[in-house]
Amino acid sequence: VASVKNPADSHQHPIEIDALIVGAGPVGLFQVFQLGLLEIKAHVVDVLPYAGGQCAELYPHKPIYDIPALSVCTGRELTDKLLAQIAPFGAAFHYGQQLTSFEKQPDGRFLVQTNKGIVFCTKTLFIAAGVGAFLPRTVNLQGLDRFYGQQLIYPNTGTASSVYADKNVVIVGGGDDAVGWAFRCCAGFGDASDASEPKARSVTLVHRRDVLQASPDKLAAVHALCEAKKMRFLAGQLTGFEENNGVLTSLEVCGIDGQESQVPTDALLILQGLSPKLGPIAQWGLDMERKQLRVDTETYSTSEPGIFAVGDINTYPGKKKLIVCGFHECVLAAYGAAAIIFPERKVPLQYTTTSPKLHQLLGVIPAAD
Amino acid sequence: VASVKNPADSHQHPIEIDALIVGAGPVGLFQVFQLGLLEIKAHVVDVLPYAGGQCAELYPHKPIYDIPALSVCTGRELTDKLLAQIAPFGAAFHYGQQLTSFEKQPDGRFLVQTNKGIVFCTKTLFIAAGVGAFLPRTVNLQGLDRFYGQQLIYPNTGTASSVYADKNVVIVGGGDDAVGWAFRCCAGFGDASDASEPKARSVTLVHRRDVLQASPDKLAAVHALCEAKKMRFLAGQLTGFEENNGVLTSLEVCGIDGQESQVPTDALLILQGLSPKLGPIAQWGLDMERKQLRVDTETYSTSEPGIFAVGDINTYPGKKKLIVCGFHECVLAAYGAAAIIFPERKVPLQYTTTSPKLHQLLGVIPAAD
Repeated sequence: VASVKNPADSHQHPIEIDALIVGAGPVGLFQVFQLGLLEIKAHVVDVLPYAGGQCAELYPHKPIYDIPALSVCTGRELTDKLLAQIAPFGAAFHYGQQLTSFEKQPDGRFLVQTNKGIVFCTKTLFIAAGVGAFLPRTVNLQGLDRFYGQQLIYPNTGTASSVYADKNVVIVGGGDDAVGWAFRCCAGFGDASDASEPKARSVTLVHRRDVLQASPDKLAAVHALCEAKKMRFLAGQLTGFEENNGVLTSLEVCGIDGQESQVPTDALLILQGLSPKLGPIAQWGLDMERKQLRVDTETYSTSEPGIFAVGDINTYPGKKKLIVCGFHECVLAAYGAAAIIFPERKVPLQYTTTSPKLHQLLGVIPAAD
Repeated sequence: VASVKNPADSHQHPIEIDALIVGAGPVGLFQVFQLGLLEIKAHVVDVLPYAGGQCAELYPHKPIYDIPALSVCTGRELTDKLLAQIAPFGAAFHYGQQLTSFEKQPDGRFLVQTNKGIVFCTKTLFIAAGVGAFLPRTVNLQGLDRFYGQQLIYPNTGTASSVYADKNVVIVGGGDDAVGWAFRCCAGFGDASDASEPKARSVTLVHRRDVLQASPDKLAAVHALCEAKKMRFLAGQLTGFEENNGVLTSLEVCGIDGQESQVPTDALLILQGLSPKLGPIAQWGLDMERKQLRVDTETYSTSEPGIFAVGDINTYPGKKKLIVCGFHECVLAAYGAAAIIFPERKVPLQYTTTSPKLHQLLGVIPAAD
């Protein structure tokens, strides 16, 4: 496998572990459970600040009907149930970060580092990254990145901030979040009806199409604000920018009608939603098919022994991207890992219904039948 | 594949169907669900008189801890939840019967018949028979079978009957059921404390070992009844019988001490528990490994196209006999079957969270998110 940047350069002492799971979606969570039953403690890394993955990010309140024996549950409920189920195994969760560097050690272990600087040295690695890490969709304009974190912001959904008071604000996006932010900047950042609230100096909403995805009343409000010259809506793309001593001063927008506009800019808010990206894992040299990791169906191992892939990120003949399939994959991957972590002994299949050992691990004392 | 007895001899008109599932355990039930999502209606045959399979038969009240997102549930609860989940798909259940004969038709369909005379002509067949059909353990004594249903009985657990009043009753078995039946025959068949209840003339309990598996108080009661000459306990095996004009009159028991006893017998109750048997399926000529059916992991097809095997009955590299694995197998088997049932069209993967078509099939109208 390829090695990507040398984590040994880091000053952090690596955390030596048996199993690292990338992704805290339903399948990553159930991987914790299956490893736990085999007495393997797991660490979990996820780019989101909470568990649940796609379920929590894309459809937290939408019902799912095809989890066996759960006629209906939302993504949030499924996540909560899985978190409760895996609680006895005390997995360590590292949220809000991604693996960046990766290196195979001479002893077969993997040295990996997150973008927050945590370094793990792990015997086995489970990629349960779904369709990839959910990262904000970026604007494709060379050189713009240099303003990231200062004038270029990917705001969290729904969080208002008065730092944009009296600023020239440009908002890129066409959905509810973008439209909502435009309203807040026009009307002030607190109670929208309070005229004494600080407002942005100018508000420009830029979207690649002339159709916004928002409710009819919001669209009417956008129209009214534009008519009253309190907001400007440009259908088009960012094509350039101007700066002065490292400070962004204006953006160039090329309209879908071919018209170019210069928009004075103090703050640029990007609200184009989240997009899943496989990220650095794609550079590890694992055998892939399109954007999926090829696995065998005996242990769901990737082409690199010790690295397993479970859930939507893997592919094999017959693969269906369903949560229930990911759950099965976790079982066989856990046994595959056990053979690596405990090379000296055979790990037998035990049943949670009958095994006193598993009852102890789960912290339960079942009644006699 | 082998053909076993010709069902065409039957006078019954075959029921023409798309999918027949053998086994109504958790995996057979979830197979109904996965077929239902693909608009394939299923018929289900099970030897037990109710759904649940091993879960319901072997551990109905014992907790299971490893069903994803169900921290704990009993076998009975799991069965009930699955029955509720599959209800929208209106599967037809045929309980208390086994498939006996099997024949492949020239058009590729399978003609199968149950021991209750129902004949199906099905495009696809799903064997979800677990460790096999649960049938009462029999006594291995040549010629004894001829009394079956008359003097030789496999009683249902817990059902008393006064037909044994004034009879010489021999009970074979060493567990709770056998001991319980012995008590009821000694004390009468209704309220045990009512001395006016009809009693058996004699009660002999025969078990292959001199250790009974029953609670200490029951063992004490057995001892007391034997001391009082109201019951006889023989540790040994049935080695012969006598009959008179087709009527069983006595049994020969060879004790573990080598002693032979003749026991007058009007009724022989066999209570040695249930034992799983693969049954006639083993004679269909499918590729097997020990007692399991070999399947591919792309569609969980057996060696015979159109016959799938899911759950504990199948085997493949990495196989673990866990319910969660069987659930996954159902998904891929359903798609494998869809390719046979709908050869003219590709069956796409749809999600229950987003597909209006699946919502319609499930009979749900999810709230907008």
